[in-house]
Amino acid sequence: MTGDRREPGVAGVPVTRVTGETAAATRDELSVEEPLEIRIAVSGARPVPLAVTMRTPGDDFDLTAGFLCTEGVIAARDDLDDLEAEAPNVVTAVLRRGVSFDPACLERHSFVSSSCGVCGKRSIAAVTVARRYRLAPAEPRLDARVVHTLPAALRGGQPGFARTGGIHAAALFDAGGRLLALREDVGRHNALDKLIGAEFRAGRVPLADRLILVSGRVSFELVQKAAIAGAPALVAVGAPSSLAVDLARESGMTLLGFVRDGRFNVYSDAGRVNVPGGPTAERT
Amino acid sequence: MTGDRREPGVAGVPVTRVTGETAAATRDELSVEEPLEIRIAVSGARPVPLAVTMRTPGDDFDLTAGFLCTEGVIAARDDLDDLEAEAPNVVTAVLRRGVSFDPACLERHSFVSSSCGVCGKRSIAAVTVARRYRLAPAEPRLDARVVHTLPAALRGGQPGFARTGGIHAAALFDAGGRLLALREDVGRHNALDKLIGAEFRAGRVPLADRLILVSGRVSFELVQKAAIAGAPALVAVGAPSSLAVDLARESGMTLLGFVRDGRFNVYSDAGRVNVPGGPTAERT
Repeated sequence: MTGDRREPGVAGVPVTRVTGETAAATRDELSVEEPLEIRIAVSGARPVPLAVTMRTPGDDFDLTAGFLCTEGVIAARDDLDDLEAEAPNVVTAVLRRGVSFDPACLERHSFVSSSCGVCGKRSIAAVTVARRYRLAPAEPRLDARVVHTLPAALRGGQPGFARTGGIHAAALFDAGGRLLALREDVGRHNALDKLIGAEFRAGRVPLADRLILVSGRVSFELVQKAAIAGAPALVAVGAPSSLAVDLARESGMTLLGFVRDGRFNVYSDAGRVNVPGGPTAERT
Repeated sequence: MTGDRREPGVAGVPVTRVTGETAAATRDELSVEEPLEIRIAVSGARPVPLAVTMRTPGDDFDLTAGFLCTEGVIAARDDLDDLEAEAPNVVTAVLRRGVSFDPACLERHSFVSSSCGVCGKRSIAAVTVARRYRLAPAEPRLDARVVHTLPAALRGGQPGFARTGGIHAAALFDAGGRLLALREDVGRHNALDKLIGAEFRAGRVPLADRLILVSGRVSFELVQKAAIAGAPALVAVGAPSSLAVDLARESGMTLLGFVRDGRFNVYSDAGRVNVPGGPTAERT
């Protein structure tokens, strides 16, 4: 299993920059977006296409491993025998003999095939992928002073955003606020899958004692991915949705939003947030 | 066919707001996110589930019609016999007898079923849905002074964002900058589908002579949806991706990005942008 790590893609294009009523020809840098086809092969059988995701090239192996982990296809590092780049935009994941999967069971996202009834995932109740890890309550402790430092640490480690202004990031921190890993992508789900996939490949899932910071808003699906990876805390620069908060509370995950400019909101505490002298959401 | 128009959902939740090292119990307003199951029935047959999308409740009929339009399932208003709310989060689209569709052909998005080979859409080349409408070159003319006014018009018509800070919007304008329609959703694709669906249901697709403004970044898929709906111009407050620019140029669509604070970038002109005394991207 060899890595394909490189900086997330940035492409330069000629543009006209209009300021007021003045136009000037210049160049702009864009985040690259290209399709990645993820294929699966089990037990030496011929690979079958599983998914196509629009992503920023780079960290494709991490993305593939993270996608398969957060979709519940693989649970442990050993479930993945190999990752192979078949073409620039095609990665095949070779699963360990004995790992079973039903492609129809993964179709809950946007399209439901007419043959999907067998696995029951076509019902609305089944948009939730089962969690594997129980989060330790009140662990780790998150200090407000540390939380305030996270957005700057994210931006400092995010060269792509500074250049293009158009890329999401997901980063892993320890409870002391030390940046451990960071991944970027035009898609927020992909950025998180890349981050989780990198940890998964290193045998560090579940992500106990770690917190994840995402650069944008938090949907149900991001909370679900973090929960499946066993992360006890998800911290966002942007706003959460109602269902993201519901799932975080139900999962015992700490969810912080609008973390910027020395402020944040605690949407779900689970006993982890430490504010000197302050109440927390669960206590009030 | 009755409408279900209501304001996009906003939910209040108790939170702890941390400022520096001070915490205070308060309430916050969140954008509601819930799954919508879209079902399809043809010729009186039993409805079959087609897709599940995580969306902000409200305008569900517009969302369903727009989704089916921008996915290429229906092409004209008459292709849709009826829309029925079967449950709070389930909408069935009844297609005109004679409209054929293959659910497997729609699975290009994220998951590809093993039975999908028959329609050929599982290849990467097939992420593109065929466009139906040819955009008239150089029409309509877009004046820079008008473009500068669009973000304020969007925000003025977007009550959800002001309350939650966490919702996307898509709006339709005429070339004079008059706001014609606006839809909100936690998902940017859904906001655009709702907008296009409302026009589709009113028999106003293709959207010739109109421009679409989106509140966030522009991916390949948003350009594709706008192109399928025949919109000659897509204007974004945020950054486009590389593939978004490629598709806009290939489609003859005008694509403007970073439209804010009296400035914008012209990524694809197609002869429509009028800046007094300025060059445009195609000419330089």
